[in-house]
Amino acid sequence: MTDLPFAFTLSLPEWAVTELAAMPEFTATAEQRMRLVLELARRNALEDTGGPFAAAVFEHDSGQLVAVGVNRVMPTSCSSAHAEVMALSLAQHRLQVYDLGGPGQPVFELVVNWRPCAMCFGAVLWSGIRRLTIAGSGPELENLTGFDEGPMPRQWRAELARRGIVVTEGVLRREAIDLFRWFGASGRTVYNARQG
Amino acid sequence: MTDLPFAFTLSLPEWAVTELAAMPEFTATAEQRMRLVLELARRNALEDTGGPFAAAVFEHDSGQLVAVGVNRVMPTSCSSAHAEVMALSLAQHRLQVYDLGGPGQPVFELVVNWRPCAMCFGAVLWSGIRRLTIAGSGPELENLTGFDEGPMPRQWRAELARRGIVVTEGVLRREAIDLFRWFGASGRTVYNARQG
Repeated sequence: MTDLPFAFTLSLPEWAVTELAAMPEFTATAEQRMRLVLELARRNALEDTGGPFAAAVFEHDSGQLVAVGVNRVMPTSCSSAHAEVMALSLAQHRLQVYDLGGPGQPVFELVVNWRPCAMCFGAVLWSGIRRLTIAGSGPELENLTGFDEGPMPRQWRAELARRGIVVTEGVLRREAIDLFRWFGASGRTVYNARQG
Repeated sequence: MTDLPFAFTLSLPEWAVTELAAMPEFTATAEQRMRLVLELARRNALEDTGGPFAAAVFEHDSGQLVAVGVNRVMPTSCSSAHAEVMALSLAQHRLQVYDLGGPGQPVFELVVNWRPCAMCFGAVLWSGIRRLTIAGSGPELENLTGFDEGPMPRQWRAELARRGIVVTEGVLRREAIDLFRWFGASGRTVYNARQG
Protein backbone atom coordinates (compact mmCIF):
# COMPACT_ATOMS: atom_id res chain seq x y z
CA MET A 1 0.00 0.00 0.00
CA THR A 2 1.50 3.29 -0.99
CA ASP A 3 -1.06 5.68 0.43
CA LEU A 4 -0.60 4.88 4.11
CA PRO A 5 0.00 8.13 6.00
CA PHE A 6 3.55 8.69 7.23
CA ALA A 7 3.48 11.92 9.25
CA PHE A 8 1.17 14.51 10.72
CA THR A 9 1.68 18.04 11.96
CA LEU A 10 -0.13 19.80 14.78
CA SER A 11 0.01 23.56 14.99
CA LEU A 12 -1.41 26.45 16.96
CA PRO A 13 -4.07 28.64 15.32
CA GLU A 14 -3.02 31.49 13.06
CA TRP A 15 -4.12 34.11 15.57
CA ALA A 16 -1.47 32.71 17.91
CA VAL A 17 1.34 34.11 15.78
CA THR A 18 0.70 37.67 16.91
CA GLU A 19 -0.58 36.55 20.32
CA LEU A 20 2.65 34.67 21.08
CA ALA A 21 4.82 37.54 19.90
CA ALA A 22 3.08 39.82 22.41
CA MET A 23 3.46 37.47 25.37
CA PRO A 24 5.76 38.34 28.25
CA GLU A 25 8.88 36.18 28.41
CA PHE A 26 8.66 36.02 32.22
CA THR A 27 5.73 35.91 34.63
CA ALA A 28 6.21 35.87 38.38
CA THR A 29 3.10 34.39 39.98
CA ALA A 30 0.78 31.42 39.48
CA GLU A 31 -2.10 33.85 38.98
CA GLN A 32 -0.28 35.68 36.19
CA ARG A 33 0.50 32.39 34.47
CA MET A 34 -3.08 31.17 34.79
CA ARG A 35 -4.40 34.48 33.48
CA LEU A 36 -2.29 34.05 30.37
CA VAL A 37 -3.65 30.49 29.96
CA LEU A 38 -7.25 31.60 30.49
CA GLU A 39 -6.85 34.31 27.87
CA LEU A 40 -5.59 31.73 25.36
CA ALA A 41 -8.48 29.39 26.18
CA ARG A 42 -11.02 32.18 25.80
CA ARG A 43 -9.52 33.36 22.52
CA ASN A 44 -9.39 29.80 21.16
CA ALA A 45 -13.09 29.27 21.80
CA LEU A 46 -14.04 32.74 20.58
CA GLU A 47 -12.20 32.25 17.28
CA ASP A 48 -13.65 28.74 16.87
CA THR A 49 -10.17 27.28 16.58
CA GLY A 50 -10.75 24.60 19.24
CA GLY A 51 -12.32 23.98 22.64
CA PRO A 52 -12.03 26.36 25.63
CA PHE A 53 -8.85 24.82 26.94
CA ALA A 54 -5.28 26.07 27.05
CA ALA A 55 -2.06 25.10 28.75
CA ALA A 56 1.44 26.48 29.06
CA VAL A 57 4.82 25.22 30.20
CA PHE A 58 6.95 27.54 32.32
CA GLU A 59 10.27 27.29 34.04
CA HIS A 60 8.85 27.29 37.54
CA ASP A 61 11.56 29.29 39.29
CA SER A 62 12.47 31.89 36.66
CA GLY A 63 8.93 32.12 35.30
CA GLN A 64 10.17 31.91 31.72
CA LEU A 65 7.50 30.84 29.25
CA VAL A 66 8.63 27.79 27.26
CA ALA A 67 5.58 26.82 25.19
CA VAL A 68 1.83 27.25 25.01
CA GLY A 69 -0.90 24.98 23.72
CA VAL A 70 -4.58 25.26 22.98
CA ASN A 71 -7.12 22.58 22.16
CA ARG A 72 -6.91 21.81 18.43
CA VAL A 73 -9.04 18.66 18.10
CA MET A 74 -11.56 19.79 15.50
CA PRO A 75 -9.43 22.05 13.26
CA THR A 76 -6.55 19.55 13.02
CA SER A 77 -8.73 16.41 12.84
CA CYS A 78 -6.83 14.95 15.77
CA SER A 79 -8.64 13.77 18.88
CA SER A 80 -5.38 13.77 20.88
CA ALA A 81 -4.66 17.45 20.19
CA HIS A 82 -5.74 18.58 23.66
CA ALA A 83 -4.18 21.72 25.11
CA GLU A 84 -1.91 19.78 27.46
CA VAL A 85 -0.59 17.50 24.71
CA MET A 86 0.03 20.56 22.53
CA ALA A 87 1.88 22.50 25.23
CA LEU A 88 3.95 19.55 26.45
CA SER A 89 4.83 18.41 22.93
CA LEU A 90 5.78 21.93 21.83
CA ALA A 91 7.94 22.37 24.94
CA GLN A 92 9.65 19.04 24.29
CA HIS A 93 10.08 19.97 20.63
CA ARG A 94 11.64 23.31 21.56
CA LEU A 95 14.01 21.77 24.10
CA GLN A 96 14.55 18.57 22.08
CA VAL A 97 13.90 16.31 25.08
CA TYR A 98 11.17 13.74 25.66
CA ASP A 99 11.63 14.03 29.43
CA LEU A 100 10.96 17.47 30.94
CA GLY A 101 12.18 16.15 34.30
CA GLY A 102 15.51 14.85 33.07
CA PRO A 103 18.89 15.50 34.67
CA GLY A 104 20.29 19.03 34.61
CA GLN A 105 16.99 20.64 33.72
CA PRO A 106 15.16 23.37 35.62
CA VAL A 107 11.82 22.56 37.26
CA PHE A 108 9.12 22.82 34.60
CA GLU A 109 5.50 23.61 35.43
CA LEU A 110 2.40 22.88 33.37
CA VAL A 111 -0.40 25.40 33.91
CA VAL A 112 -3.87 24.35 32.71
CA ASN A 113 -7.33 25.89 33.08
CA TRP A 114 -8.77 22.72 34.69
CA ARG A 115 -7.78 19.24 35.76
CA PRO A 116 -6.45 17.25 32.79
CA CYS A 117 -8.81 14.67 31.27
CA ALA A 118 -8.20 10.91 31.45
CA MET A 119 -5.82 11.00 28.48
CA CYS A 120 -3.95 14.14 29.48
CA PHE A 121 -3.52 12.82 33.02
CA GLY A 122 -1.39 10.08 31.47
CA ALA A 123 0.33 12.57 29.17
CA VAL A 124 1.32 14.64 32.22
CA LEU A 125 2.82 11.56 33.88
CA TRP A 126 4.88 10.62 30.83
CA SER A 127 6.09 14.14 30.12
CA GLY A 128 8.41 14.23 33.11
CA ILE A 129 6.96 17.59 34.17
CA ARG A 130 7.56 18.31 37.88
CA ARG A 131 4.69 20.66 38.66
CA LEU A 132 1.04 20.83 37.62
CA THR A 133 -0.95 23.99 38.34
CA ILE A 134 -4.70 23.88 37.71
CA ALA A 135 -7.62 26.24 38.19
CA GLY A 136 -9.81 23.47 39.64
CA SER A 137 -10.76 19.81 39.45
CA GLY A 138 -14.47 19.44 40.13
CA PRO A 139 -17.42 18.46 37.95
CA GLU A 140 -18.00 22.07 36.89
CA LEU A 141 -16.15 21.64 33.60
CA GLU A 142 -18.32 18.70 32.48
CA ASN A 143 -21.53 20.17 33.89
CA LEU A 144 -21.12 23.61 32.34
CA THR A 145 -19.67 22.67 28.94
CA GLY A 146 -20.81 19.11 28.22
CA PHE A 147 -17.27 17.90 27.51
CA ASP A 148 -16.60 14.30 28.60
CA GLU A 149 -13.46 14.16 30.75
CA GLY A 150 -13.35 10.39 31.04
CA PRO A 151 -12.68 8.01 33.91
CA MET A 152 -9.78 9.00 36.16
CA PRO A 153 -7.92 6.71 38.54
CA ARG A 154 -9.59 7.31 41.91
CA GLN A 155 -6.31 8.25 43.57
CA TRP A 156 -5.17 10.63 40.86
CA ARG A 157 -3.69 13.15 43.29
CA ALA A 158 -1.77 10.39 45.06
CA GLU A 159 -0.55 9.02 41.72
CA LEU A 160 0.85 12.43 40.79
CA ALA A 161 2.43 12.83 44.23
CA ARG A 162 3.92 9.34 44.05
CA ARG A 163 5.74 10.39 40.91
CA GLY A 164 6.98 13.59 42.49
CA ILE A 165 4.62 15.90 40.62
CA VAL A 166 3.60 18.83 42.81
CA VAL A 167 0.00 19.92 42.24
CA THR A 168 -1.25 23.44 42.90
CA GLU A 169 -5.02 23.70 42.69
CA GLY A 170 -7.55 26.52 42.77
CA VAL A 171 -5.69 29.25 40.89
CA LEU A 172 -8.26 31.67 39.39
CA ARG A 173 -10.94 29.03 39.86
CA ARG A 174 -13.82 31.46 39.55
CA GLU A 175 -12.49 32.93 36.31
CA ALA A 176 -12.03 29.43 34.87
CA ILE A 177 -15.61 28.52 35.74
CA ASP A 178 -16.87 31.77 34.23
CA LEU A 179 -15.20 30.81 30.95
CA PHE A 180 -16.81 27.35 30.96
CA ARG A 181 -20.20 28.88 31.74
CA TRP A 182 -19.84 31.33 28.85
CA PHE A 183 -18.75 28.52 26.51
CA GLY A 184 -21.64 26.29 27.53
CA ALA A 185 -24.14 29.08 26.95
CA SER A 186 -22.61 30.06 23.60
CA GLY A 187 -23.95 26.99 21.77
CA ARG A 188 -20.51 26.12 20.37
CA THR A 189 -19.71 22.56 19.33
CA VAL A 190 -18.72 20.06 21.99
CA TYR A 191 -16.57 17.60 20.07
CA ASN A 192 -16.86 14.44 22.19
CA ALA A 193 -16.23 11.32 20.14
CA ARG A 194 -19.28 9.64 18.62
CA GLN A 195 -21.14 12.67 17.47
CA GLY A 196 -23.08 10.31 15.28
CA MET B 1 8.42 36.38 22.71
CA THR B 2 9.17 35.43 19.15
CA ASP B 3 10.77 32.03 19.67
CA LEU B 4 7.78 30.21 21.14
CA PRO B 5 7.22 27.01 19.17
CA PHE B 6 4.20 26.99 16.88
CA ALA B 7 3.99 23.48 15.41
CA PHE B 8 5.46 20.01 15.66
CA THR B 9 5.47 17.04 13.32
CA LEU B 10 5.43 13.37 14.25
CA SER B 11 6.46 10.80 11.68
CA LEU B 12 7.09 7.11 11.31
CA PRO B 13 10.71 5.90 11.03
CA GLU B 14 12.44 5.92 7.65
CA TRP B 15 12.39 2.13 7.41
CA ALA B 16 8.61 2.35 7.42
CA VAL B 17 8.57 3.82 3.91
CA THR B 18 9.45 0.51 2.30
CA GLU B 19 7.71 -1.51 5.01
CA LEU B 20 4.41 0.29 4.43
CA ALA B 21 4.66 -0.06 0.66
CA ALA B 22 4.96 -3.83 1.08
CA MET B 23 1.98 -4.17 3.40
CA PRO B 24 -1.17 -5.94 2.26
CA GLU B 25 -4.11 -3.58 1.74
CA PHE B 26 -6.52 -6.13 3.25
CA THR B 27 -6.16 -8.67 6.05
CA ALA B 28 -8.96 -11.03 6.98
CA THR B 29 -8.40 -12.18 10.56
CA ALA B 30 -7.50 -10.67 13.94
CA GLU B 31 -4.42 -12.89 14.01
CA GLN B 32 -3.20 -11.59 10.65
CA ARG B 33 -3.71 -8.01 11.81
CA MET B 34 -1.90 -8.63 15.09
CA ARG B 35 0.96 -10.35 13.28
CA LEU B 36 1.43 -7.24 11.17
CA VAL B 37 1.44 -5.10 14.33
CA LEU B 38 3.89 -7.40 16.12
CA GLU B 39 6.26 -7.26 13.16
CA LEU B 40 6.19 -3.44 13.24
CA ALA B 41 6.82 -3.44 17.01
CA ARG B 42 9.73 -5.87 16.65
CA ARG B 43 11.24 -3.91 13.79
CA ASN B 44 10.87 -0.61 15.66
CA ALA B 45 12.77 -1.93 18.66
CA LEU B 46 15.37 -3.70 16.53
CA GLU B 47 16.14 -0.52 14.57
CA ASP B 48 16.22 1.57 17.78
CA THR B 49 13.57 3.89 16.37
CA GLY B 50 11.31 3.65 19.45
CA GLY B 51 9.92 1.23 22.02
CA PRO B 52 8.57 -2.27 21.20
CA PHE B 53 5.03 -1.08 20.59
CA ALA B 54 2.97 -0.78 17.44
CA ALA B 55 -0.65 -0.22 16.55
CA ALA B 56 -2.76 -0.16 13.41
CA VAL B 57 -6.21 1.03 12.42
CA PHE B 58 -8.27 -1.23 10.15
CA GLU B 59 -11.74 -1.12 8.70
CA HIS B 60 -13.06 -3.96 10.79
CA ASP B 61 -15.37 -5.55 8.23
CA SER B 62 -13.39 -5.17 5.02
CA GLY B 63 -10.02 -5.57 6.73
CA GLN B 64 -8.58 -2.60 4.88
CA LEU B 65 -5.52 -1.13 6.54
CA VAL B 66 -5.99 2.60 7.22
CA ALA B 67 -2.90 3.63 9.18
CA VAL B 68 -0.11 2.21 11.30
CA GLY B 69 1.82 3.66 14.22
CA VAL B 70 4.89 2.73 16.19
CA ASN B 71 6.25 4.21 19.39
CA ARG B 72 8.31 7.31 18.55
CA VAL B 73 8.91 8.88 21.98
CA MET B 74 12.69 9.07 22.00
CA PRO B 75 13.48 9.82 18.33
CA THR B 76 10.87 12.57 18.06
CA SER B 77 11.40 14.03 21.57
CA CYS B 78 7.70 13.63 22.27
CA SER B 79 6.48 11.69 25.29
CA SER B 80 2.98 11.43 23.81
CA ALA B 81 4.17 9.72 20.62
CA HIS B 82 3.00 6.28 21.70
CA ALA B 83 2.05 3.76 19.03
CA GLU B 84 -1.69 4.18 19.63
CA VAL B 85 -1.53 7.98 19.39
CA MET B 86 0.51 7.70 16.20
CA ALA B 87 -1.87 5.20 14.56
CA LEU B 88 -5.06 6.99 15.61
CA SER B 89 -3.72 10.42 14.65
CA LEU B 90 -2.47 9.18 11.27
CA ALA B 91 -5.82 7.50 10.57
CA GLN B 92 -7.66 10.70 11.49
CA HIS B 93 -5.23 12.71 9.38
CA ARG B 94 -5.79 10.41 6.40
CA LEU B 95 -9.58 10.48 6.72
CA GLN B 96 -9.69 14.13 7.85
CA VAL B 97 -11.96 13.35 10.80
CA TYR B 98 -11.35 13.74 14.53
CA ASP B 99 -14.04 11.14 15.28
CA LEU B 100 -13.44 7.65 13.89
CA GLY B 101 -16.91 6.65 15.07
CA GLY B 102 -18.80 9.44 13.37
CA PRO B 103 -21.92 9.03 11.24
CA GLY B 104 -21.63 7.25 7.90
CA GLN B 105 -18.28 5.70 8.69
CA PRO B 106 -17.39 2.02 8.67
CA VAL B 107 -16.47 0.32 11.95
CA PHE B 108 -12.81 1.03 12.67
CA GLU B 109 -10.65 -1.25 14.79
CA LEU B 110 -7.44 -0.42 16.63
CA VAL B 111 -5.07 -3.37 16.95
CA VAL B 112 -2.28 -3.03 19.55
CA ASN B 113 0.32 -5.44 20.89
CA TRP B 114 -0.81 -4.95 24.52
CA ARG B 115 -3.36 -3.06 26.58
CA PRO B 116 -2.97 0.70 26.08
CA CYS B 117 -1.23 2.64 28.87
CA ALA B 118 -3.03 5.17 31.08
CA MET B 119 -2.66 7.93 28.47
CA CYS B 120 -3.53 5.82 25.45
CA PHE B 121 -6.58 4.43 27.22
CA GLY B 122 -7.93 7.98 27.17
CA ALA B 123 -6.73 8.50 23.59
CA VAL B 124 -8.72 5.40 22.56
CA LEU B 125 -11.86 6.79 24.21
CA TRP B 126 -11.55 10.17 22.50
CA SER B 127 -10.72 8.75 19.07
CA GLY B 128 -14.23 7.43 18.48
CA ILE B 129 -12.82 4.04 17.49
CA ARG B 130 -15.41 1.25 17.84
CA ARG B 131 -13.21 -1.77 18.38
CA LEU B 132 -10.00 -2.41 20.32
CA THR B 133 -8.08 -5.63 19.73
CA ILE B 134 -5.17 -6.38 22.06
CA ALA B 135 -2.72 -9.23 22.54
CA GLY B 136 -3.11 -9.13 26.32
CA SER B 137 -3.57 -6.94 29.37
CA GLY B 138 -1.64 -8.41 32.29
CA PRO B 139 1.47 -7.27 34.17
CA GLU B 140 3.76 -9.11 31.75
CA LEU B 141 4.52 -5.96 29.74
CA GLU B 142 5.75 -4.02 32.77
CA ASN B 143 7.48 -7.00 34.36
CA LEU B 144 9.38 -8.07 31.25
CA THR B 145 10.31 -4.67 29.82
CA GLY B 146 10.38 -2.22 32.73
CA PHE B 147 8.04 0.24 30.99
CA ASP B 148 5.66 2.08 33.35
CA GLU B 149 2.08 1.76 32.09
CA GLY B 150 0.54 4.07 34.68
CA PRO B 151 -2.60 3.91 36.79
CA MET B 152 -5.69 2.69 34.96
CA PRO B 153 -9.28 3.21 36.07
CA ARG B 154 -10.16 -0.03 37.87
CA GLN B 155 -13.17 -0.66 35.64
CA TRP B 156 -11.35 -0.01 32.37
CA ARG B 157 -13.11 -2.81 30.50
CA ALA B 158 -16.50 -1.55 31.69
CA GLU B 159 -15.58 2.02 30.71
CA LEU B 160 -14.78 0.89 27.18
CA ALA B 161 -17.97 -1.19 27.00
CA ARG B 162 -20.04 1.72 28.31
CA ARG B 163 -18.81 3.78 25.36
CA GLY B 164 -19.65 1.02 22.91
CA ILE B 165 -16.04 -0.01 22.29
CA VAL B 166 -15.82 -3.76 21.68
CA VAL B 167 -12.64 -5.29 23.15
CA THR B 168 -11.06 -8.47 21.80
CA GLU B 169 -8.28 -9.75 24.04
CA GLY B 170 -5.67 -12.50 23.83
CA VAL B 171 -4.78 -12.38 20.12
CA LEU B 172 -1.26 -13.82 19.68
CA ARG B 173 -0.64 -13.30 23.37
CA ARG B 174 2.33 -15.65 23.52
CA GLU B 175 4.05 -13.97 20.57
CA ALA B 176 3.53 -10.55 22.17
CA ILE B 177 5.07 -11.73 25.43
CA ASP B 178 8.00 -13.26 23.55
CA LEU B 179 8.69 -9.85 22.02
CA PHE B 180 8.62 -8.13 25.43
CA ARG B 181 10.91 -10.80 26.87
CA TRP B 182 13.37 -10.33 24.03
CA PHE B 183 13.24 -6.54 24.43
CA GLY B 184 13.78 -6.72 28.18
CA ALA B 185 16.78 -9.00 27.75
CA SER B 186 18.27 -6.84 24.98
CA GLY B 187 19.37 -4.05 27.31
CA ARG B 188 17.67 -1.38 25.21
CA THR B 189 16.61 1.92 26.74
CA VAL B 190 13.35 2.08 28.67
CA TYR B 191 12.33 5.70 28.27
CA ASN B 192 10.06 6.25 31.29
CA ALA B 193 9.95 9.90 32.32
CA ARG B 194 12.42 10.99 34.99
CA GLN B 195 15.46 9.22 33.73
CA GLY B 196 17.41 11.62 35.94
